[in-house]
Amino acid sequence: MVKKFTVGVIGAGRIGKIHTENLLHKISDINLKIVADIKINDDLKQWAAEMGVIKLTSDPNEIFDDPKIEVVVICSSTDTHTKFIQEAAKAKKHVFCEKPIDTDIKRIKKTLSIVEKSGIKLMVGFNRRFDRNFIRCHESVASGQIGEPHIVKITSRDPAPPPIEYIKVSGGMFLDMTIHDWDMARFQAGSEVEEIYATGAVLIDPEIGKVGDIDTAVALLKFKNGAIGIIDNTRQAVYGYDQRVEVFGSKGCVVADNEATNTVRIYTAECTNIDKIPYFFLERYMESYATELKSFFECLRKNIEPLPNGEDGLQDVLVAKAAQKSYEDNRPVKISEVDI
Amino acid sequence: MVKKFTVGVIGAGRIGKIHTENLLHKISDINLKIVADIKINDDLKQWAAEMGVIKLTSDPNEIFDDPKIEVVVICSSTDTHTKFIQEAAKAKKHVFCEKPIDTDIKRIKKTLSIVEKSGIKLMVGFNRRFDRNFIRCHESVASGQIGEPHIVKITSRDPAPPPIEYIKVSGGMFLDMTIHDWDMARFQAGSEVEEIYATGAVLIDPEIGKVGDIDTAVALLKFKNGAIGIIDNTRQAVYGYDQRVEVFGSKGCVVADNEATNTVRIYTAECTNIDKIPYFFLERYMESYATELKSFFECLRKNIEPLPNGEDGLQDVLVAKAAQKSYEDNRPVKISEVDI
Amino acid sequence: MVKKFTVGVIGAGRIGKIHTENLLHKISDINLKIVADIKINDDLKQWAAEMGVIKLTSDPNEIFDDPKIEVVVICSSTDTHTKFIQEAAKAKKHVFCEKPIDTDIKRIKKTLSIVEKSGIKLMVGFNRRFDRNFIRCHESVASGQIGEPHIVKITSRDPAPPPIEYIKVSGGMFLDMTIHDWDMARFQAGSEVEEIYATGAVLIDPEIGKVGDIDTAVALLKFKNGAIGIIDNTRQAVYGYDQRVEVFGSKGCVVADNEATNTVRIYTAECTNIDKIPYFFLERYMESYATELKSFFECLRKNIEPLPNGEDGLQDVLVAKAAQKSYEDNRPVKISEVDI
Amino acid sequence: MVKKFTVGVIGAGRIGKIHTENLLHKISDINLKIVADIKINDDLKQWAAEMGVIKLTSDPNEIFDDPKIEVVVICSSTDTHTKFIQEAAKAKKHVFCEKPIDTDIKRIKKTLSIVEKSGIKLMVGFNRRFDRNFIRCHESVASGQIGEPHIVKITSRDPAPPPIEYIKVSGGMFLDMTIHDWDMARFQAGSEVEEIYATGAVLIDPEIGKVGDIDTAVALLKFKNGAIGIIDNTRQAVYGYDQRVEVFGSKGCVVADNEATNTVRIYTAECTNIDKIPYFFLERYMESYATELKSFFECLRKNIEPLPNGEDGLQDVLVAKAAQKSYEDNRPVKISEVDI
Repeated sequence: MVKKFTVGVIGAGRIGKIHTENLLHKISDINLKIVADIKINDDLKQWAAEMGVIKLTSDPNEIFDDPKIEVVVICSSTDTHTKFIQEAAKAKKHVFCEKPIDTDIKRIKKTLSIVEKSGIKLMVGFNRRFDRNFIRCHESVASGQIGEPHIVKITSRDPAPPPIEYIKVSGGMFLDMTIHDWDMARFQAGSEVEEIYATGAVLIDPEIGKVGDIDTAVALLKFKNGAIGIIDNTRQAVYGYDQRVEVFGSKGCVVADNEATNTVRIYTAECTNIDKIPYFFLERYMESYATELKSFFECLRKNIEPLPNGEDGLQDVLVAKAAQKSYEDNRPVKISEVDI
Repeated sequence: MVKKFTVGVIGAGRIGKIHTENLLHKISDINLKIVADIKINDDLKQWAAEMGVIKLTSDPNEIFDDPKIEVVVICSSTDTHTKFIQEAAKAKKHVFCEKPIDTDIKRIKKTLSIVEKSGIKLMVGFNRRFDRNFIRCHESVASGQIGEPHIVKITSRDPAPPPIEYIKVSGGMFLDMTIHDWDMARFQAGSEVEEIYATGAVLIDPEIGKVGDIDTAVALLKFKNGAIGIIDNTRQAVYGYDQRVEVFGSKGCVVADNEATNTVRIYTAECTNIDKIPYFFLERYMESYATELKSFFECLRKNIEPLPNGEDGLQDVLVAKAAQKSYEDNRPVKISEVDI
Repeated sequence: MVKKFTVGVIGAGRIGKIHTENLLHKISDINLKIVADIKINDDLKQWAAEMGVIKLTSDPNEIFDDPKIEVVVICSSTDTHTKFIQEAAKAKKHVFCEKPIDTDIKRIKKTLSIVEKSGIKLMVGFNRRFDRNFIRCHESVASGQIGEPHIVKITSRDPAPPPIEYIKVSGGMFLDMTIHDWDMARFQAGSEVEEIYATGAVLIDPEIGKVGDIDTAVALLKFKNGAIGIIDNTRQAVYGYDQRVEVFGSKGCVVADNEATNTVRIYTAECTNIDKIPYFFLERYMESYATELKSFFECLRKNIEPLPNGEDGLQDVLVAKAAQKSYEDNRPVKISEVDI
Repeated sequence: MVKKFTVGVIGAGRIGKIHTENLLHKISDINLKIVADIKINDDLKQWAAEMGVIKLTSDPNEIFDDPKIEVVVICSSTDTHTKFIQEAAKAKKHVFCEKPIDTDIKRIKKTLSIVEKSGIKLMVGFNRRFDRNFIRCHESVASGQIGEPHIVKITSRDPAPPPIEYIKVSGGMFLDMTIHDWDMARFQAGSEVEEIYATGAVLIDPEIGKVGDIDTAVALLKFKNGAIGIIDNTRQAVYGYDQRVEVFGSKGCVVADNEATNTVRIYTAECTNIDKIPYFFLERYMESYATELKSFFECLRKNIEPLPNGEDGLQDVLVAKAAQKSYEDNRPVKISEVDI
């Protein structure tokens, strides 16, 4: 008989809705009991009804206080993550928390320490690790098929920048957007970052520069295992959401290309046409959100550490901090410099 | 306010389960009220409970007699299709019927005549028309982008033959397997078949030959608009479910290739590797089953003819009959010869 | 010490010039002594001077009478092929002859008989067998990598039709254009054709129909080893010279796609673009012309039968004849029916 | 009437032989009169005879002193380049010089100054600029099709390292191997490099480290036009010679992939196989060597500046020097720091 977990979700924004719908329709053997969101309006109520959410509340404590609930999925705003993780730890409930854990290294470390003592399990929502292409890439590296990894290259380009109001409070491109790529680089390299040199520019929209951020970034990472990483980011690739990974190793090279919108080629007297790649993360990564939750519950059932875990979440933020410092000082920065 | 149809499903075998799950989880604004299947056992009960089927019955009349139910989805065995379509027509319920409508031309014609008089809408389940790749291909032809179609090529190869017991009662390869391809060829050519030359062989498994069937088939079609069609089939492509379409026209050529399992290429000292293509129709066409039902309900709401309709279902069987005759006589056969 | 053959070329039209230039610049250890052409004008003289042709003559007998010349490359008009092959056989000179040997079955057979008695070697210029892609395809089949061949598919489409004046005297599409594909099908299938069903249409240019020919053709072949072949041809593919081969077998499938003009993909906000495929046979097959001659001389040096040989040339014409008959009678035709 | 240049070649090593053969067989309207090489042995004599070299000499002055010779192609060792360029300038002969011009900035500058005063034309042999794929890429950028370039990515990986003895005297990876990539990056970006951060490692062969060099390198370039460049190099990609270019811009992205050995895909029960990419530069770039010489002579005839010219050769060496300094100091280095 499969263990059936009872689950509560905190935060029903865009990503909270995705997780909720996956919990309701795509994840077997779990029971979603409560969804909590501080702002309950008619739209949210209608969505909850249509989806079949049993209970919608504005009070997350209903989740923490419910002894039946064993798992909390945290999708609220970043500044509330550590608070809710700590409360879950106190209540001995396992946690799946959206990325990033927090933007403050000390707060993350303190939270991870509480998690560790509590014995609960914590997974951080780097969903791209569960994309079928990047998993296949990772497997190829991890299995030794391409030998020792020497060069890890990540291309990660958004189709359009978020609103300026969002960018103002985003924590900067390295922490907001590249955070996924720091994690992907570590995941593929199978090693921690030791030093980073990051540069950036404002090439897309001067307004982004005016609020102190950049819209184009390139970073060069040195991993502890000797591999070198390269990440390039832009806030606007007009041709769609460009998400590729390449790992070069001593015995070969593995390349994960973009997903295609379809497999059709149209040959005409002028040229051959292929449709644009899918627009954005909802088109590209929808499946990976369900896969990561499935993996999480599987780990809980097997009583093994879910990955990426809190330590991963910490390392990713450390790299982001070091990248920011490197960009500001225009010099290579060791992770140890920001690991306070 | 969107019209919300109440629906009953007849037949909960493999394909009936797929449609039921789509109706429950992926199709908006419909209400699945009853699922009927003649053989109700514990497995089926458990599946129904897990999926959230409200009512499971062994009596399809509960569907026909329910005045709330406006739409019947017929997934029972082929020999029951026309009976259920006729009952639905009598009860003024719209019908989505799995392919083929029937294997007897006269029975199909009589049923279509009853459908027409009743005013109900009838869609036949050629789901491949809703595959994103073949839709794109069709659009390219239908829009005139590649000009007048001259040559339509369909590659359709199963990964493994069905059991001999199934083949014995299948009606023969042209009616059982190629039926999808007759429909696809007509869909892409945008024209009806006028004459066919079909050949076949037993190259995969001699047992298939012993029960009077073939396992490899190639057919050459002449369409009324002058285009020539080519279909090749095999019961066993060891590398996976090979499903491709190509239309060559006066202004270009459109080619729909297989879906990839992932986009990863692995370069090694020996060669470059790509993973096998997806195994079979559940992997390849799952999305198309939901898309076809969505299209069906959209047509009902707009009060327009859903496609492929009963006439399509008839034409596809006529082509299959002519193909069989051509193969047996080893000569080109006109569709009019079998259109009794 | 490598044997150095002395060579004469008869016919300096388009294909004769290609072979001459290859003999002069790309084939090692041969000595091109004489080029003969019945029409010598200033253009030809200038070309010969620039290329470094030592002797240009209007009399082919200078080649046959020269005891130093051991090899004759025949590139004159088709109606002169058998005459020159017979003269070469009489003079004990090896022959490389452009395709087709002749259009008359009896004349071909008589010539092959003379060749056989003379002991000379005869290769027929089906250069596509030496295209790197089709060789690779053939190797994959011949080595057993894809098991027993079941289906052989050849797509062969010209970018533009030849002038009507040419078509009038071409012998018909099946003998003029498809001749290459009959040979390719036999080469890939590794078996002779037993029966053929061919159809055709005038879809490109009504003028072609007026002179009694077709511009679109599809043929279905049955090979002695059980494999089924499919060939599709058109005189005009506006997107370029479309040349593909596919062999499906019991253990896999091998597909040779078109050569690309370059490897560049351009991603824009509208779509992804690839440049058109190369225009015509000079772009696609130039390398194969040199490779076939190299193979010919290598066979002479090793004293082994060069392939494709006279028997291949005969079989290809037999298939063409049967295809024409099948098209005219609209019925499958056995090769034995035309093998007089 | 086309101007026919008389040409002399200095240096008949590997690259000198390639240029000589191209001059003899592939470049029209030129007359190769003398090939000079300091080491004339029997092998070289035989090669010269077979190729049709009219005169082979050990004295390059025979070229400089010959008033008929208007063009000198310099393929001798790097340390002799500036001496021969200067002599050619004195003798008013145009120069095609292999890369790099020299490894000493001052010597390069002095030589370019002499070239300028003399009025002769100087082209430097960065043949990759003439690869059909990279040309197409460049055209796409230069024409504005992808808008302003933001990110230029170059992947350049050799299949196997050269002998240690060669590496010892190579001047270091950045000057020996990456020199092609500095040039390619500048060519694609359409701008000069302003600052560079380069890192490297010994991951392939410890012996390379022992002689003070690296075998893996990654560099991050900042161009004057704001674009950011990324280059990754390795001395050993076991899967073949990996040569790719990508330029991301405000209106799109252009990607030039590796040339394929053939277009064949083999689908089996295990996976899909593609043959390895071509092994090394002779396979990949042979055509580009002929194309660059054709371009050179075309520029001479049109009396326009051939590109890449001496200034390009200088800039590429400056970037190499800055890269080396950046690697040694582990900090970003401005080109102006090394431009003495």
